[in-house]
Amino acid sequence: MAISKAPQAFPRQEYLRRLAEVKSEMSRRDVDALVVTSWANVTYLTGSLSRMHALHGLVITLRDEEPTMIVRSMDGPGVIHHSFMDRRKVIAYSEAFVANAEKNGFDAVIDFLLDAGVANRGVGLELGNLTAQAAEKFKTRLSNAKIVDCTKVVDWIRIVKSDLEIRVMREAAAIADTAIMRASDVIRPGVREGDAAAEIQAAQVRGAKGGPNATNLKPFLMCTTPRTGTAHILWSEDVFRDGSQVNIELSGIRYNYTAAIMRTFSIGAPSDRLRRTHDAHVAGLEAALDAAKPGRTCNDVANAFYRTSESMGVKKESRCGYSIGVDWLEPTASLANGDMTKLKPNMCFHLMLGNWIDEDFGYVISETIRITETGAEALTRAPRKLFEL
Amino acid sequence: MAISKAPQAFPRQEYLRRLAEVKSEMSRRDVDALVVTSWANVTYLTGSLSRMHALHGLVITLRDEEPTMIVRSMDGPGVIHHSFMDRRKVIAYSEAFVANAEKNGFDAVIDFLLDAGVANRGVGLELGNLTAQAAEKFKTRLSNAKIVDCTKVVDWIRIVKSDLEIRVMREAAAIADTAIMRASDVIRPGVREGDAAAEIQAAQVRGAKGGPNATNLKPFLMCTTPRTGTAHILWSEDVFRDGSQVNIELSGIRYNYTAAIMRTFSIGAPSDRLRRTHDAHVAGLEAALDAAKPGRTCNDVANAFYRTSESMGVKKESRCGYSIGVDWLEPTASLANGDMTKLKPNMCFHLMLGNWIDEDFGYVISETIRITETGAEALTRAPRKLFEL
Repeated sequence: MAISKAPQAFPRQEYLRRLAEVKSEMSRRDVDALVVTSWANVTYLTGSLSRMHALHGLVITLRDEEPTMIVRSMDGPGVIHHSFMDRRKVIAYSEAFVANAEKNGFDAVIDFLLDAGVANRGVGLELGNLTAQAAEKFKTRLSNAKIVDCTKVVDWIRIVKSDLEIRVMREAAAIADTAIMRASDVIRPGVREGDAAAEIQAAQVRGAKGGPNATNLKPFLMCTTPRTGTAHILWSEDVFRDGSQVNIELSGIRYNYTAAIMRTFSIGAPSDRLRRTHDAHVAGLEAALDAAKPGRTCNDVANAFYRTSESMGVKKESRCGYSIGVDWLEPTASLANGDMTKLKPNMCFHLMLGNWIDEDFGYVISETIRITETGAEALTRAPRKLFEL
Repeated sequence: MAISKAPQAFPRQEYLRRLAEVKSEMSRRDVDALVVTSWANVTYLTGSLSRMHALHGLVITLRDEEPTMIVRSMDGPGVIHHSFMDRRKVIAYSEAFVANAEKNGFDAVIDFLLDAGVANRGVGLELGNLTAQAAEKFKTRLSNAKIVDCTKVVDWIRIVKSDLEIRVMREAAAIADTAIMRASDVIRPGVREGDAAAEIQAAQVRGAKGGPNATNLKPFLMCTTPRTGTAHILWSEDVFRDGSQVNIELSGIRYNYTAAIMRTFSIGAPSDRLRRTHDAHVAGLEAALDAAKPGRTCNDVANAFYRTSESMGVKKESRCGYSIGVDWLEPTASLANGDMTKLKPNMCFHLMLGNWIDEDFGYVISETIRITETGAEALTRAPRKLFEL
């Protein structure tokens, strides 16, 4: 029996709007058929929420209203269930293409392009995400096509969100806030770090009070003394202790839309150094929010932070954030010195002020923000404080 | 101040043993320096548990006992903390290489190879994991080197585990079992799927009773009626209902070593079809376990399952599993028709018998197994039953 359609995150019209923008860019680049392989871009253009290891391709053509998704056979029903497209637009390829050195899922994508008769002119590929071997396969088997590199074409379109997407980002932010507040409840001296992590992770799945559950959770980061100088590791097998500092970076996820937040916790009174670092970061964060408005650039926002925090004695080497949306990090604009991307309403950024200052000392704070018509607002709303537990 | 070393998952000698095997393979291929970029392989060869987005490279040379890890500066302390190497073997590259179109982390890896004087003969790359652009960068900047494709060289070495690794795999399996048993406690009619998922996920982090916590959790899969025909999606916003079937695939993780398990749950009495499907799969699973022993092949194991389950009226199109270890799926041997990989003691497989039979009906059962000296044993131990709740 046919699988039903899931309740959709967005109306059909929203997907057609996104696709129209992609098609317009395809026309500009003389591309008849675009093959999208980035998972975040597939989610953005179809609503699919599957997590698949197998090769796949979403084919957008100028002539067809709906795109076609080519996936491993066991993944067909999941894509039909979540995506907005007609079920005939999901093509399942045989298991014979899996773990096979000669033929793989990209052969199924190429077969589709050839059968559909769209392989004689421009074919766009996200070459930046493809292995050399995969790129070679497309070039060899599509010898009549002109291969056009379309890396990040869809990513640059999704950098500006619709109001419908912002609504979902707000739900994601509320989940992130809930998990941060849960952290402030469960981090206590003598508790195993992992036992607290279990509660925080459960809060991330359960979601905000009265709100929807989250799915497709990403592991969160929790770096406790003496590991606060590390950026991307998780909890240890230790217990929390009096005087420990805990740096947390976590996300709320809704239909794969992600809002991230960082907060620092101190068990007992924070050291003077930690307090000063916090004050400089909060001042910098507020300066960055003030600087963020349409017409200004990513560079302006980053430098507002750097100027302010440096005037208070704190230097940060890394960038101040990046575009955020489907699947956390969008590979487009950075809040960084020299990034001249112009801000537009409904861009969202993870204003990420994690600062790993010494090998054994770091501090984190961040908000997920939205550019408004006149400025910027934080979507994450947990108290902007150094939590003393 | 310098960051301390974490308690190590394995003694130094274990890492040197693994490296000796890699170096022997390098010699055979006339490779002086091997650049490892696969995360699972980095974990295997160093003990690093970080999760980084930024480009990195682990360089193994024939002449040096310890490898050198080149990472983004903010990731240096985490790698020093978890890895077995001397801290001078972790080289942090500047933030200027991040989100920079001209130079990236691979330039830092190449700079190291050039400075170390190991770029004049064979340089091994995992080309199968590199984008065309990255491969081109290595080839262009290492113009005096002979580039040798070493894709999966490390993966094929780690397919056979040491006894120390098996001990960790057993811990991972105990965590997976605990989470499955938690699922059988919390899946109840009227409960939101996501609320049950929150409890199961918390159990995965908390770990087995009296045992260590888990980190680096992967999201688990839970496909409930009417979605049991889907393989790779998560919970919905629905509540469980009387008569619903729930297919779960989840993992226990310990130092990134992963044991996976699948079980099917029925709220109320299962349908005849579900019962018959279960019986055929369990008989097939047992036949596969009987067939698994040193000297036999992956092909033999898969066909023992297919023959038995088909004799009981159930056909499965997809393979019956794959090598498992660090980071779940190892991209080497498959338990599949035609895979003639010979089984050896201490190989581990996810004997994965998920079977998505119709668009609206699937069934799952699996064990993580180890090949012993004389046969095979299941590391996962949850009751091999169709759970009736």
